[in-house]
Amino acid sequence: MKLFNSVILSTFLSVISMPLFADESPITPEQKATAQQLMASALKSDLGFNIVESLTTEIGPRLGGSEAEKRARDWGVKLGNELGFDKAWIEEFTMPFWDRGHLHIALTSPYNQALYGSALGGAAPSKKEINAPIVYFRDIHALTAIEDGTLQGKVAFVDGEPMVKSQTGAGYGPSNQKRRIGWQHAERGGASALIIRSVGSDSHRFPHTGMMSKNGDKWAKIPVIAISNPDADHLRRLHNLDKPLAISLHSGSDWQGDVTSGNVILDIIGSEKPEEIVLIGGHLDSWDLGTGAVDDGAGIAITTAAAKLIANLPKRPKRTIRVVMFGAEEVGLLGAFAYAKKHEGNLQNHVLATESDFGARNIWRIESFVNPQATKLVDEIAKIIAPLGIVRGGSDVKGGGPDIIPLANKGVPTIRLNQEGTDYFDLHHTPDDTLDKIIPEELAQNVAAYAATIYLIADTDIDLKAKR
Amino acid sequence: MKLFNSVILSTFLSVISMPLFADESPITPEQKATAQQLMASALKSDLGFNIVESLTTEIGPRLGGSEAEKRARDWGVKLGNELGFDKAWIEEFTMPFWDRGHLHIALTSPYNQALYGSALGGAAPSKKEINAPIVYFRDIHALTAIEDGTLQGKVAFVDGEPMVKSQTGAGYGPSNQKRRIGWQHAERGGASALIIRSVGSDSHRFPHTGMMSKNGDKWAKIPVIAISNPDADHLRRLHNLDKPLAISLHSGSDWQGDVTSGNVILDIIGSEKPEEIVLIGGHLDSWDLGTGAVDDGAGIAITTAAAKLIANLPKRPKRTIRVVMFGAEEVGLLGAFAYAKKHEGNLQNHVLATESDFGARNIWRIESFVNPQATKLVDEIAKIIAPLGIVRGGSDVKGGGPDIIPLANKGVPTIRLNQEGTDYFDLHHTPDDTLDKIIPEELAQNVAAYAATIYLIADTDIDLKAKR
Repeated sequence: MKLFNSVILSTFLSVISMPLFADESPITPEQKATAQQLMASALKSDLGFNIVESLTTEIGPRLGGSEAEKRARDWGVKLGNELGFDKAWIEEFTMPFWDRGHLHIALTSPYNQALYGSALGGAAPSKKEINAPIVYFRDIHALTAIEDGTLQGKVAFVDGEPMVKSQTGAGYGPSNQKRRIGWQHAERGGASALIIRSVGSDSHRFPHTGMMSKNGDKWAKIPVIAISNPDADHLRRLHNLDKPLAISLHSGSDWQGDVTSGNVILDIIGSEKPEEIVLIGGHLDSWDLGTGAVDDGAGIAITTAAAKLIANLPKRPKRTIRVVMFGAEEVGLLGAFAYAKKHEGNLQNHVLATESDFGARNIWRIESFVNPQATKLVDEIAKIIAPLGIVRGGSDVKGGGPDIIPLANKGVPTIRLNQEGTDYFDLHHTPDDTLDKIIPEELAQNVAAYAATIYLIADTDIDLKAKR
Repeated sequence: MKLFNSVILSTFLSVISMPLFADESPITPEQKATAQQLMASALKSDLGFNIVESLTTEIGPRLGGSEAEKRARDWGVKLGNELGFDKAWIEEFTMPFWDRGHLHIALTSPYNQALYGSALGGAAPSKKEINAPIVYFRDIHALTAIEDGTLQGKVAFVDGEPMVKSQTGAGYGPSNQKRRIGWQHAERGGASALIIRSVGSDSHRFPHTGMMSKNGDKWAKIPVIAISNPDADHLRRLHNLDKPLAISLHSGSDWQGDVTSGNVILDIIGSEKPEEIVLIGGHLDSWDLGTGAVDDGAGIAITTAAAKLIANLPKRPKRTIRVVMFGAEEVGLLGAFAYAKKHEGNLQNHVLATESDFGARNIWRIESFVNPQATKLVDEIAKIIAPLGIVRGGSDVKGGGPDIIPLANKGVPTIRLNQEGTDYFDLHHTPDDTLDKIIPEELAQNVAAYAATIYLIADTDIDLKAKR
């Protein structure tokens, strides 16, 4: 290597913002070649699709805390062992179980018509059938503005708009307010129940379920039901015609006491620094309405397949690669908090954490939240995975995915491989989240990006922790 | 007009297949201008969309023979009067009423999972809950090949493929065999119930309902349930894994005795030949799962709006234009047969009949089944409506739409304005058939094509009857 010349040249070139020289790269040519080979293997492999097919077919829907989620954990450990992970085990935790029960919901005025609704997570049962007039609220702000006690004997309906579509899912937060906190205001008003327009961007007749927020340590005492966007459109049109709206509603959803859930952990032990952990994963539980293919069987499949491809290499990377299949994510990140708590004495050894939990479409961007030196490593990784159609995103974006929040809050560095999400909220939390929505080639692109990225981070000596 | 020259020239040009000359055209320049003005008005008008919005919103789902269908008839007469039709009345008929009742259907082996199913029209109730193993049939042919009595104590499941997509709906007939006749073979085998893969081209979690065929004068004595394409995929995958499949099923669908249905008839009386009738229309009833927007609120709206635009002209066309809103189409063309019977003494005065009942997408082709001289008229009409994006189709295609079948079979000439149908069977007979699926501009294109075509046929002296 012509070191002297290259230093001079690099000094010059840095003025015009050129990249690092090869011999200054944090990635060796051998590592780069290995990463490229991993990508090529991943794009040819159907392992990822086979995993999500197996999970959705052999286990089916798997609500957090359910018997099905238990079967999913056993499936996860068996899968880890069959794929040759060095360790595979379950870490159980206790959680309160909420069950949807049976729902009847129908318009009774101006005429009888069945509505397509689902109880929201945490909603109370109706005890007996509710027959009441509907009070229409144009959006969540109209509901939050009511005075206490003004909805006695009524059912509140919060309309709004179908969720704004966005590649990044930016429409979710604003649209989700009515799901999160609507019940508190309906209860404050004395309403018998709350109905909301689904938090979803589609125009299909499926309601989108999802968890409500607690108010302090309190859950809702009334039934809370999401109805599909076309059903909400229908109520809006009738309301605009000044038709008197009334509803019949009977919901069996309720809390059922404490049950056992758990996280499944699969390790590929590092060859030089086995104590240092690069954590990837997804969540094993799903909502009960679909079969949890896109949310989040895909994430389980992508990260497990990526780790398996790395394990196929002649030599283990320096650091341990850990796949965590988080339990009970949908019902409040319960597995994520349980993991962070159980491993709180060892978080300094978690050199990076990231989760795949935004569907199964192509990855289009890599973001990071690591220290400046490690940021250069991620910049170099971004160049290597760029042929997959991935751009370098922000280097100061805290994230990593929902189940990574408790770890990121305690200082664990994160990256995120952003998936194309424009149609994610068409399917999200609906019965339509099934295997047929996954395009095998796009899932394989995800596996390729994870395999290359995680290998390069696991095989480096660079510390990723932020020094700020 | 240079008559002599033009005759010579036309003789010459006919050799090279040129069209008729203007002065030989069956359409006068004034008629052509009026047709063009009707198209321009239609494309600017939201009358069609307003009609289907009103029907789906103010009436909702309207199963043949139901109280809702009665409200729809009253709505139809009121609409006709408000729009200034010369006559508006109801012709009632009696029909047997089938009601869906409540359905519970869930997989119980290899694990518990709710399925998304709907009873098929004409299916019997289960009386008590059926718990039975599933016998898997790869397609309808596998079921029809069974020997008598070999399905005792079992539930038959007929798989197949999602319906083939086609602009013309050509996939419907083949896919529909399992819905039409499957029950006869399941019953012959002694099965407790039959489950079929939905007759639909989508990959959503909605089952497609629809009527079964009678066997002679006999309806099914067992429950028959359609499950969604993703549910059928799921059962196929489990079957291919050699998992033992079993089901729990309870269906309340049953016949409920005789009720009253009816056709709504709206006339624009002809100015010169009021006894000659150009019949257009759609069907007023819908399946109960959606709100019958695409099937067939759209057809009602398109034909009523087209007739109204013609009625707005300074002078009525020569012939009477009759809009028929047929009752009880979905449950066996009952309104169509009732109309043909009631008017059987006057069918020779029905100079043409056509129905809009294939959704709400653009019209792309005009087909006809009229005598050779009238075929030339349709050829000329095709040129006038061509700017709407419509090609001339076959001139020997018997048709006109489902409700026109009884009339066509008795010799009434037909045309058909073919709609783009590639995605029609994504929605067909599902809960997803709602107003949001209609694109107002495309509906207006339909109104434009109907208005121009029907005006030109109503204002001509040409007899359309086939002389064969």
